[in-house]
Amino acid sequence: MPTIQDVARKAGVSVATVSRVLNNPSAVAEKTRLQVQRVMEEIDYAPSILGRNLRTSESRMFIVLLPMISNPFYVNIVEGIEETAIENGYNILLCQTHSKPERQNVYFELLRNRLADGVISMDPTLNKEKLIHLAKQFPIVHCSEYDKDKSLSYVTIDSELAAYQMTRYLLKQGHTRIALINADEKFLYARERKRGYLRALEEYKIDYDESWILTARDVSFDAGQQSMRSLLQRNQKFTAIFAVSDVLAIGALKELNIKGIRVPEEMAIAGFDKIDFSNMTYPSLTTISQPMYKMGCTAVEMLIKKTRGEKVDDVILEHELIIREST
Amino acid sequence: MPTIQDVARKAGVSVATVSRVLNNPSAVAEKTRLQVQRVMEEIDYAPSILGRNLRTSESRMFIVLLPMISNPFYVNIVEGIEETAIENGYNILLCQTHSKPERQNVYFELLRNRLADGVISMDPTLNKEKLIHLAKQFPIVHCSEYDKDKSLSYVTIDSELAAYQMTRYLLKQGHTRIALINADEKFLYARERKRGYLRALEEYKIDYDESWILTARDVSFDAGQQSMRSLLQRNQKFTAIFAVSDVLAIGALKELNIKGIRVPEEMAIAGFDKIDFSNMTYPSLTTISQPMYKMGCTAVEMLIKKTRGEKVDDVILEHELIIREST
Repeated sequence: MPTIQDVARKAGVSVATVSRVLNNPSAVAEKTRLQVQRVMEEIDYAPSILGRNLRTSESRMFIVLLPMISNPFYVNIVEGIEETAIENGYNILLCQTHSKPERQNVYFELLRNRLADGVISMDPTLNKEKLIHLAKQFPIVHCSEYDKDKSLSYVTIDSELAAYQMTRYLLKQGHTRIALINADEKFLYARERKRGYLRALEEYKIDYDESWILTARDVSFDAGQQSMRSLLQRNQKFTAIFAVSDVLAIGALKELNIKGIRVPEEMAIAGFDKIDFSNMTYPSLTTISQPMYKMGCTAVEMLIKKTRGEKVDDVILEHELIIREST
Repeated sequence: MPTIQDVARKAGVSVATVSRVLNNPSAVAEKTRLQVQRVMEEIDYAPSILGRNLRTSESRMFIVLLPMISNPFYVNIVEGIEETAIENGYNILLCQTHSKPERQNVYFELLRNRLADGVISMDPTLNKEKLIHLAKQFPIVHCSEYDKDKSLSYVTIDSELAAYQMTRYLLKQGHTRIALINADEKFLYARERKRGYLRALEEYKIDYDESWILTARDVSFDAGQQSMRSLLQRNQKFTAIFAVSDVLAIGALKELNIKGIRVPEEMAIAGFDKIDFSNMTYPSLTTISQPMYKMGCTAVEMLIKKTRGEKVDDVILEHELIIREST
């Protein structure tokens, strides 16, 4: 790879002059500047990011940690993150953690080595102590997920309230036997949505039991379909299903279609997130609209403030109940 | 951030000893090694990746360039890439290019600065001259997309043959008016699939015209739905639709559902890719199965060979016609 010395030699100038062309071009006579730039192009010289980092301590790169890109929920957030980052002169690196600490550590190393200026994390399983420790030195913002004790900045929605509203809506529709397809309770949103669901059932004095709640293997279509299959075997005569993620609801809907169970006549079904695909199913899915794009934009705005050392307030964005054909 | 000097001072050893603990621990007496490791943990010292890079010229990081993560087609490839990379001690950074050269350049800089050891590119719009030039210095593998003149290594499928087979299958079903929803012809796959479609029509001596082919705005559900709307306005009495991507086909299917046009009785529809969603639609989608996971695995295997300076053969993987309910 050509070095700054190669450029200097070939252009017949000093290394200091080449450096000035890179960092303060107006201080260099035009003829010299053009000559140096021509040589750089000719020998395909790229100034080292390493060098730049050490000098300015800025990489203009943000790391985005997400459990996995297969859930379209994250895709829409990433869109908001990326557009806002680029508008502000930053680029992003997407890092799938699969919720594994050893993967998370690899990406934190990039931060500690100043190859990134900050982190937006959508991974709820991060080691909290480690994160708080890192957050003292580096800008970090939680997006969608957050921590109860507020030691880390976050942007999110009120999951408990949204789940409560959805369950109450189903109850008002006359359903009294409503099953919950939940995600793993390692996710804070899963714990909160379950709490909202239970609060509505209790408010309506519904006599439920533990068999109404099923935890899906993971957040995927397959897991949703399999969850529906298990629920149908429980012989609980459910008339409505509330899944805490559209992906799970869509898988469950598929199983109902296969079994010939009419939706919503024989079974109502509702999801959560309002991913693009939730409108492509048959029938279209009732769901909670999360402001995913806006959440991504907000996370970046907060992170940029943090890189400047400004104070940042946590943000809870509005959600919306979207009634469609499946209920 | 604590430095290697801090560790040495606090542990009461020389910097050289700390370095040996990091790079050749068996050469250090156990008591000293444990002492140094304890201090590292205590002051939260992380050896610099920068230092490691400069010394070994290896970052154990691969860059994956993809146009956008919103198409589930890429998600499955990334799964194969990531699992194979990790098995081999590499991590990956996902980089969305949105097919924009300035974005691509940012990520190539990481390569040129040795912050990554290689690139897997799924972006067909990369500047070819630049890529060939980079490929002389760095390991690069094309995945799914490739270049006709074979100056760059690739793993892909035979898109032209697959589209030919799908069109021929529709013709054999008795369809004689088959529309094509194509992607932008900047994608090689779009040009190839169109060629396969036309070859089948010509073989069956079908009298088609240009109005049978529609180029979608982009590869998204919305664009598929909008394309279907336009095709229906063309009054061409189509009885079958072939979309070159499942995402487009699913959007088109939605429009048919909305219009009350029965699938497959009044209109057959076929997609391409076999993304997970394609089985969640109603009715389920006839499509071409691309071996996405395997394609990702193969790309990494090729890339690792390249990092070792080994010779790499291009690979064309098998596809499969998947007949489901929509045709």
